[in-house]
Amino acid sequence: MKTFALSQLGQRTEAPPISWLMQLTLDHPHLISLAAGFTDTESLPFEEARELLDEILAAPRSRRIALQYGTTGGDPHLRRLTADRLWKLDSAEGAPFSARADGPTNAEGAQRSSLVAAKEDYSPDRILITNGSQQLLYLLAECLCDPGDIVLVEDPTYFVYLGIAQSRGFSCRGIRLEADGIDLSHLEHTLEGLRRSGELKRVKMLYLVSYWQNPTGITTSFVKKAAALEILRRFERASGHPIYLLEDAAYRELRFAGDDVASALAAEGAKERVIYTGTYSKPFATGARVGFGILPKALMTVVSRVKANHDFGTSSLLQQLLCRALATCRYERHLPALRRRYARKAATMTEAMREHFPAAVRWQEPGGGLYVWAKCPRPVRSGVNSRLFKRALEREVLYVPGELCYADDPARRKPNHEMRISFGNATEADIRAGIARLGRTLGELL
Amino acid sequence: MKTFALSQLGQRTEAPPISWLMQLTLDHPHLISLAAGFTDTESLPFEEARELLDEILAAPRSRRIALQYGTTGGDPHLRRLTADRLWKLDSAEGAPFSARADGPTNAEGAQRSSLVAAKEDYSPDRILITNGSQQLLYLLAECLCDPGDIVLVEDPTYFVYLGIAQSRGFSCRGIRLEADGIDLSHLEHTLEGLRRSGELKRVKMLYLVSYWQNPTGITTSFVKKAAALEILRRFERASGHPIYLLEDAAYRELRFAGDDVASALAAEGAKERVIYTGTYSKPFATGARVGFGILPKALMTVVSRVKANHDFGTSSLLQQLLCRALATCRYERHLPALRRRYARKAATMTEAMREHFPAAVRWQEPGGGLYVWAKCPRPVRSGVNSRLFKRALEREVLYVPGELCYADDPARRKPNHEMRISFGNATEADIRAGIARLGRTLGELL
Repeated sequence: MKTFALSQLGQRTEAPPISWLMQLTLDHPHLISLAAGFTDTESLPFEEARELLDEILAAPRSRRIALQYGTTGGDPHLRRLTADRLWKLDSAEGAPFSARADGPTNAEGAQRSSLVAAKEDYSPDRILITNGSQQLLYLLAECLCDPGDIVLVEDPTYFVYLGIAQSRGFSCRGIRLEADGIDLSHLEHTLEGLRRSGELKRVKMLYLVSYWQNPTGITTSFVKKAAALEILRRFERASGHPIYLLEDAAYRELRFAGDDVASALAAEGAKERVIYTGTYSKPFATGARVGFGILPKALMTVVSRVKANHDFGTSSLLQQLLCRALATCRYERHLPALRRRYARKAATMTEAMREHFPAAVRWQEPGGGLYVWAKCPRPVRSGVNSRLFKRALEREVLYVPGELCYADDPARRKPNHEMRISFGNATEADIRAGIARLGRTLGELL
Repeated sequence: MKTFALSQLGQRTEAPPISWLMQLTLDHPHLISLAAGFTDTESLPFEEARELLDEILAAPRSRRIALQYGTTGGDPHLRRLTADRLWKLDSAEGAPFSARADGPTNAEGAQRSSLVAAKEDYSPDRILITNGSQQLLYLLAECLCDPGDIVLVEDPTYFVYLGIAQSRGFSCRGIRLEADGIDLSHLEHTLEGLRRSGELKRVKMLYLVSYWQNPTGITTSFVKKAAALEILRRFERASGHPIYLLEDAAYRELRFAGDDVASALAAEGAKERVIYTGTYSKPFATGARVGFGILPKALMTVVSRVKANHDFGTSSLLQQLLCRALATCRYERHLPALRRRYARKAATMTEAMREHFPAAVRWQEPGGGLYVWAKCPRPVRSGVNSRLFKRALEREVLYVPGELCYADDPARRKPNHEMRISFGNATEADIRAGIARLGRTLGELL
């Protein structure tokens, strides 16, 4: 007799690396973790959340909404505020949110003038409120991908997404990254290869973490997003169905240098092909875990149905919290301080890296997000079984091995010389101490 | 070219009846809905939630937990409080929560003396905190059921569960209900039939809504739960794998008459075969949507992995709210008033039914939960296409047609003469007016 009665999904699902990394943290209480993608605890809006919840639960109307069931799609007011905010960001009315004084007068600003989207396209009807944007990534995988299907991802990509694919039995193919996003010719080449091998009908989406990407910190330019959408469209005839562009904008608001970039929603043909996921967890009350998406209408129906089976709607209390935070502008007012803080922590980290890391280790100065992506010279391995990783652990410092962020792809060997180092959750003192420890370890091995 | 690129699940998933019922409510603003399974808004713990959240966000330790990411399984303190509470209820230390003065001295009380479970069995390690208990029902379906698999359900059962089955492609078979739970001989007969047809290997669970069942209001006795578990065990040799008993205790705390019944967790052999799901949404802050489950250890691992892919953990803020509500006993103190209120609303409803319904319509006086299950004489149809339903709607009153709560089962015709009428969310005035309207409609048709 079998010990379990598991489904194929149940049998297939492997332990995610995140649980293993978390276990390491628990097993080593003195460990400095530069691995977690947690936000900066000191910058969480404790007082704002306290005031907001007090106001919500004091007012006769809002408290009745907050403590009762709602509808699957989400609170109508929050959906409207979310749609308006996205429009504002994409139409560059978002200028006041810029962390820099010089404003959006660069190339991206110029691109904006050619945006084809209109305010009506950012319709609350197309907004779905979810339990973090993670839930929406999962729902989309359920609604679009069968086992054996293919999603194109950045190479490297968000490792939890690879876990969803592993569990659900679809595969991911990596598209090479350049400084401003995916390599478009590699995207074309990959799609062409899949067309030739007869696999194009299995391709459902291109998944891009487009702002301060997890793990590399790269932001995709608007031009590239629009071009990628155009390329996907060209292959639809051969695939026999739409190929969606799934834009994961989780880190969009954690920008502390440069200007915002319009989302793919603003590009030609986006309305029927772009799925945009965002979150209020990273820029505001992380523990509230409220995310959202804007979806083509045809997908909205089916994704809502499946969400109804998951939970028939995200907590009304949390939705009211975000609703009021947005409506009273406390959300906006929280962002500048948050960005200054991450800018300082990022600078602390890269200063320490310059001081302690061997010159052969390379990285880009981050302009947003939570991560620095550091590349060792090729002979040095950084993976979970590497000497570097083990010695770093002996010295009580943890990073995310770069190899975890790469899809299994027969077309290339998995790179094993990179590290995702997070300045999000560690204190500045721990960032300095952790980087010093990691630097000593690197020094010994290089 | 196909319009969509949907997965098989995406193509298969039908609109849930709940969205259609909700749309009716929106389209008829003067409608009295006796259909919704919402809780009583006036009895929601507005002041308690306000105080609790204020305390949580004022205290340096709890606020840091509340607004940060947590772990997938849930907050350790909440898991311990939840385990302790379940043990207390099952070991009849739960006596103070009894709504009646006479205490647990009846047959159930006597049964308790023979419970085999020990406190250690109610271990926090086996507790998973979820987004309502609904999420756990979904996760279990994912981890245990492939398309074509079979879950045995009560006949009738919770209609949203049937929606999960429809979407995921597994089928449900109904087991007849008696006044104290499923008909055990029908359970045996059904399993025996499935054994003979070679389908027993597809049977993964028996799903019971064991307290004040949705929709019938029936509570399953402990003796029946233990016996059902024993029957399932006998068929495991032939099935080749475990057959789980999934006990959905969503309405357990909404008891206003009689004594609590021990859960199946307390029965012989429960530890490896019983999955218990519960919720804090119905008895306390509904809009918080915090649910929980206690699972066999082997399942805990895989279900946690899949939950990590869904959302890597339920909102920490909501978990802290429940944690503090339990730890400070505000949760317990809220229950007696809540129960008195539901008792009064149930009485208001059944008094109005006695006054306005034709004598041929039958129902049981509810002792808990949110519903009265009314049976018309057989020739009268109550379904979505019936004259009764349509005329009721013309009179601006809505109920849940009983047919929606029955699985598609080739072994019997779907009953179509019952109504689920909820006293949960409507005001007492609306309950009286709604029942009067429904009574007039019934009077015309009988």
